[in-house]
Amino acid sequence: MSKRPWEPRRPDRKPPRKADFSQARERRGPGRTLHERDMTILYGWHTVKAALENPARRFRRLLLTDNARRRLAEEHVGLPIEPQSVRPDEIDRVLGPEAVHQGLYAEADPLPSPDIEETEGDLVLALDQITDPHNVGAIFRTASAFAVSALVTTARHSPEATGVLAKSASGALEHVPHVIVQNLARALTALHQRGFMLVGLDSEGETELAQVEFRAPLALVVGAEGKGLRQLTRNTCDIVARLDLPGEIKSLNVSNATALALYIARSRMPVASQRSV
Amino acid sequence: MSKRPWEPRRPDRKPPRKADFSQARERRGPGRTLHERDMTILYGWHTVKAALENPARRFRRLLLTDNARRRLAEEHVGLPIEPQSVRPDEIDRVLGPEAVHQGLYAEADPLPSPDIEETEGDLVLALDQITDPHNVGAIFRTASAFAVSALVTTARHSPEATGVLAKSASGALEHVPHVIVQNLARALTALHQRGFMLVGLDSEGETELAQVEFRAPLALVVGAEGKGLRQLTRNTCDIVARLDLPGEIKSLNVSNATALALYIARSRMPVASQRSV
Repeated sequence: MSKRPWEPRRPDRKPPRKADFSQARERRGPGRTLHERDMTILYGWHTVKAALENPARRFRRLLLTDNARRRLAEEHVGLPIEPQSVRPDEIDRVLGPEAVHQGLYAEADPLPSPDIEETEGDLVLALDQITDPHNVGAIFRTASAFAVSALVTTARHSPEATGVLAKSASGALEHVPHVIVQNLARALTALHQRGFMLVGLDSEGETELAQVEFRAPLALVVGAEGKGLRQLTRNTCDIVARLDLPGEIKSLNVSNATALALYIARSRMPVASQRSV
Repeated sequence: MSKRPWEPRRPDRKPPRKADFSQARERRGPGRTLHERDMTILYGWHTVKAALENPARRFRRLLLTDNARRRLAEEHVGLPIEPQSVRPDEIDRVLGPEAVHQGLYAEADPLPSPDIEETEGDLVLALDQITDPHNVGAIFRTASAFAVSALVTTARHSPEATGVLAKSASGALEHVPHVIVQNLARALTALHQRGFMLVGLDSEGETELAQVEFRAPLALVVGAEGKGLRQLTRNTCDIVARLDLPGEIKSLNVSNATALALYIARSRMPVASQRSV
């Protein structure tokens, strides 16, 4: 065991699963190079366990405390890469003392970003300039709970931000495909051409969300707090709807607003795709 | 202007609004002493602006950048205490570089905690051992949006944690009375005796939340992620209900779960108290 197993990989170390690097590059398509910074950091029990259980996830490094390793063995979670045994404070030193890592830390390739043209399913969620990793992570988790088939964003996150995002997502990164696009309006238009109804959520919306006559397949589009949807995004939508709130404060945290929108959409979509409420 | 205006108040400085200290102590009732650590930290535009607009809020210190002061003047927000002019990085040094303070920082007395016996209104929210300040803050904000008349918790937060909580609450601390109790089960029993219906939210609940026949006044009781409601809390409830979710991940972030529960309760409560959906 290295004394500092968390230091950046050096060229004199054999990178594990080297073949997967080129494979990942290939999957990500032309025009995108995979370099050292293009990496996902994963920590925390739910996050790392879900990643270990995802056969599509390619690991570069895995740090585990003895306790965490024992707990994974008890739950019959296989390890696709040989872990390095560390003390909890060694992970603290990588992540800072605030991060609740529960003895698990991994560095992995980002999962491949599917093409917008290949996106299937009855409910897609698109985020317009929401970048805060806590919020995006919480939205991933809620999207997974509501069986969203893809999350569309324009944002790429740094490895540090992916750590926070993945932790907030609590394993949902492994369940919800993340479609990263250059141009959101163009991606929404592509969905529209394939029959998706586009419903934007904005405090200035013309209709109350619960009054919308939803049909499937549906793409919900959510904007950033304060700024709302960009004009071009708004113009692309079939309907821009608002959430009416009875209290003093009229705006919700964006992940809470998204949770409500997903609940309302799932509850009111046509019966074939309706959830059991 | 002091070079380090954010250092702890020293006895040789005249504390502003000294009279309010005793007034606050009186409001908080016997058995609770107000000491230096019993303080609320407020920062960020929405949080500090809402506090400045709350006549019940007693300030001890107020630090403003020139920009923030100008912006408050433009919005006709009065200053109940003379602010200290600071540069943005001086607030950075108090809060750390991560905190988005937007040039506003204040130290204030906590708002008085009303007695559970005095709690009025048709919808009360109680938190069972949810302590994370980000989550509690986000829940405050959502509670305000759904016109919750009181938030009941057992937790006291440190000044540092109140800063994070207040920032996540985005001004909602000024709108939703915070009832801090020693014993949650006893507080719920007191509400029950006054006619409140008690509905607990727990993944092991016997009924789907949307199937509950709600009546007013209602107290919703939410437990911590993972742990759920404590047995004693559960026994106090009239009904323990669950949220059924159609996706892979079956548990939501606690603030998102609370937002859904409040939405469902508000949508399905008797007409007199129903919101306009």
